[in-house]
Amino acid sequence: MSRIITLTTDFGIEDAYVASIKGVILNINPSAIIVDTSHNIKPHNILEGAFVLGTAWSFFPKGTIHVVIVDPGVGTKRKAILLATPSAYFLAPDNGVLSYVLEDIDPKIKRAQAKAPELALKLYKRRLATELEAYFLSNPRYWRHPVSSTFHGRDIFAPVAAHLSLGATPPEFGEKTSQVLAFSLPQPHLEEDGTLKGHVLHVDRFGNLISNIRAKSLPQGKLIIEIAGRRISGLSTSYESGGELLALIGSSGYLEIAAKEKSAASLLGVNPGDALKVRTLNLYEKSSPLRSII
Amino acid sequence: MSRIITLTTDFGIEDAYVASIKGVILNINPSAIIVDTSHNIKPHNILEGAFVLGTAWSFFPKGTIHVVIVDPGVGTKRKAILLATPSAYFLAPDNGVLSYVLEDIDPKIKRAQAKAPELALKLYKRRLATELEAYFLSNPRYWRHPVSSTFHGRDIFAPVAAHLSLGATPPEFGEKTSQVLAFSLPQPHLEEDGTLKGHVLHVDRFGNLISNIRAKSLPQGKLIIEIAGRRISGLSTSYESGGELLALIGSSGYLEIAAKEKSAASLLGVNPGDALKVRTLNLYEKSSPLRSII
Amino acid sequence: MSRIITLTTDFGIEDAYVASIKGVILNINPSAIIVDTSHNIKPHNILEGAFVLGTAWSFFPKGTIHVVIVDPGVGTKRKAILLATPSAYFLAPDNGVLSYVLEDIDPKIKRAQAKAPELALKLYKRRLATELEAYFLSNPRYWRHPVSSTFHGRDIFAPVAAHLSLGATPPEFGEKTSQVLAFSLPQPHLEEDGTLKGHVLHVDRFGNLISNIRAKSLPQGKLIIEIAGRRISGLSTSYESGGELLALIGSSGYLEIAAKEKSAASLLGVNPGDALKVRTLNLYEKSSPLRSII
Repeated sequence: MSRIITLTTDFGIEDAYVASIKGVILNINPSAIIVDTSHNIKPHNILEGAFVLGTAWSFFPKGTIHVVIVDPGVGTKRKAILLATPSAYFLAPDNGVLSYVLEDIDPKIKRAQAKAPELALKLYKRRLATELEAYFLSNPRYWRHPVSSTFHGRDIFAPVAAHLSLGATPPEFGEKTSQVLAFSLPQPHLEEDGTLKGHVLHVDRFGNLISNIRAKSLPQGKLIIEIAGRRISGLSTSYESGGELLALIGSSGYLEIAAKEKSAASLLGVNPGDALKVRTLNLYEKSSPLRSII
Repeated sequence: MSRIITLTTDFGIEDAYVASIKGVILNINPSAIIVDTSHNIKPHNILEGAFVLGTAWSFFPKGTIHVVIVDPGVGTKRKAILLATPSAYFLAPDNGVLSYVLEDIDPKIKRAQAKAPELALKLYKRRLATELEAYFLSNPRYWRHPVSSTFHGRDIFAPVAAHLSLGATPPEFGEKTSQVLAFSLPQPHLEEDGTLKGHVLHVDRFGNLISNIRAKSLPQGKLIIEIAGRRISGLSTSYESGGELLALIGSSGYLEIAAKEKSAASLLGVNPGDALKVRTLNLYEKSSPLRSII
Repeated sequence: MSRIITLTTDFGIEDAYVASIKGVILNINPSAIIVDTSHNIKPHNILEGAFVLGTAWSFFPKGTIHVVIVDPGVGTKRKAILLATPSAYFLAPDNGVLSYVLEDIDPKIKRAQAKAPELALKLYKRRLATELEAYFLSNPRYWRHPVSSTFHGRDIFAPVAAHLSLGATPPEFGEKTSQVLAFSLPQPHLEEDGTLKGHVLHVDRFGNLISNIRAKSLPQGKLIIEIAGRRISGLSTSYESGGELLALIGSSGYLEIAAKEKSAASLLGVNPGDALKVRTLNLYEKSSPLRSII
């Protein structure tokens, strides 16, 4: 049982939506510790919300309750779920916003993702293993009434999170489910000529381009990275080493493209979804410009 | 007595103004639980601050202390007040920023507002009823010294909030008052032909247009809503039902105009203060396009 | 020993960097009280981070732990330090981001700064006085492993802050140092004709121009302030008194230029680093337009 509740939303910080949620939580559990992950997910951008949560959740104490509300379908037939894992609880609309979390916690999902290189929304169906439990939030006893049709964050997710932090058990919130909706996340793809093709997942505040290529997937040897018509040779170990443009392993373990005290996204005109390629240095290539831009 | 203190300001999140306030509060009461409502009220926009506070305060536990600082007149003769109600405490400059709160807590103010359809700043004077108590913050014993003439948030409101959270009683902070300044809020107006005319109060982060027409004021029957030359038929129950443009009852109980995964404000070019009209479907009108845009 | 930890960074609020730091802290000390100072320091702007921290830290309780991460050199040879003072602890990269704090806490630094009117990065070397203790964060026992080369905020500063809040003593974190890097801050300069020349340090959210001229440095008599070709006569005591453009002593004790319910920065086209001049009214000048703009 944890008193820590994190909030990840696309509600912004101009309105009082987030404050309403915090008020409802504190009304039920005045000892809850509420931590903002981000409320600046782009409106309705489920995939971005999934990514931001995916980079944050594992640093919190065991048993932390993560509430994620990027919920364009609020008030429709989309379900609200509680995913209970040995490490943490997740409360979210069942719309794919837990995709990165699911990939982290379940090796079978990870393997299934690897076979689905194209980005598409798909319903992921599987029998629940003992370590993966999900419940629909269908028990109105734990809701705030009357329930607004447009703000389940305040009227369903917030009170459920607060009751969970007080010790209510997952099965009390609704019936168990054997289906969780997940995006088929874009996976790096090994091409016939040995080039690893990946995509930019996220552009951070600094304009760093975070790709979906994990450090452990990189080929052995001197790397050549190609993106937006530019070529980067070798990996840097800091944002200040290398040339104007550089590649390094970012803090979440993904290959990242950065520019020295600049935005690589602006410099290159690159957006999430754009491609990059990684290969090892060809024996016949000149190796002199290593760690610099050609 | 509550340890919860909320902050609503136009100080932004780039500078350390909000942090200074939190530091002063924690210096006096290290157990205070401080919750940000919003610090992104547009600079000097008292009415927006009043609205945002108005949509948030009632979700917090009984006895919560709400500090609201949108205070262009700081350092002038404007007064600082503590409004004590059975539900919550409010600390604010006496400049109208409590207008929505006053409307919520006092039916007489609500009725007075209904008779004042035009938006205007007016001094609201009345004898205090037993359930409405206000005090000027005139007792320097509870201030931080020296008091800056430009930052009463840090030097007056913050220490007063902290002492209040520790159990000081409202009369200790200064003399009782029988006057509180309130905006005469724009009220919906029933025109001779039976059309209900209202105004847009607020545009939220999603570009949803929140009007001043409450659900309970809507006429019975099939509704036609007109705004910016567009017509919407019927109410939707979610942001994803209806056509491109839709109307629904938002989470605060007001009639709201939204666009499907878009900003209605951008789509229509509408700003706070702009008008909208609601009427019931005329018997002679074609009813076919109900719940869609004509 | 204090449970309060403040965070000042250039990480923004769109990504989960700040949340990761909070997660790491709460994992080690679930009772820590974490307060955001600002995460909207402009990317890589060390001097702005130094200024914002400088205006906030002194309002927090004795023993507060201030973590400041504006760290373009992360992963290079720059050091990470803990500065321990009788009032507070500071954790930061050793890159000048503690410059204003150092000026506040050490009169010798203040005097040294006064002799260096030009803005330049310089290594400030001195023997440690008994009241100034600094340590390199070189003991890996207090780090989170593996340490990312690009995110010491999460992997070094956060766990060190948490252990410090639990009672670990400064010498446990690494070897003592007698050098701390400080910017040579721009100091007001008295010109031969008696004019005091200063600079704009910071533009706040309201567009107020905060200069480096402290109230106590101002000459006696009726003041004339010149900035961007405009002249302001006399000091105002509030943002609403005076003319369109006004000068006053801001809440941090610096001379500030403001515009009535407008941005002085936009009105004048002034940026941080731009100059302003202060002199007393010449006996032969007309004194009539005092407290207004000529």
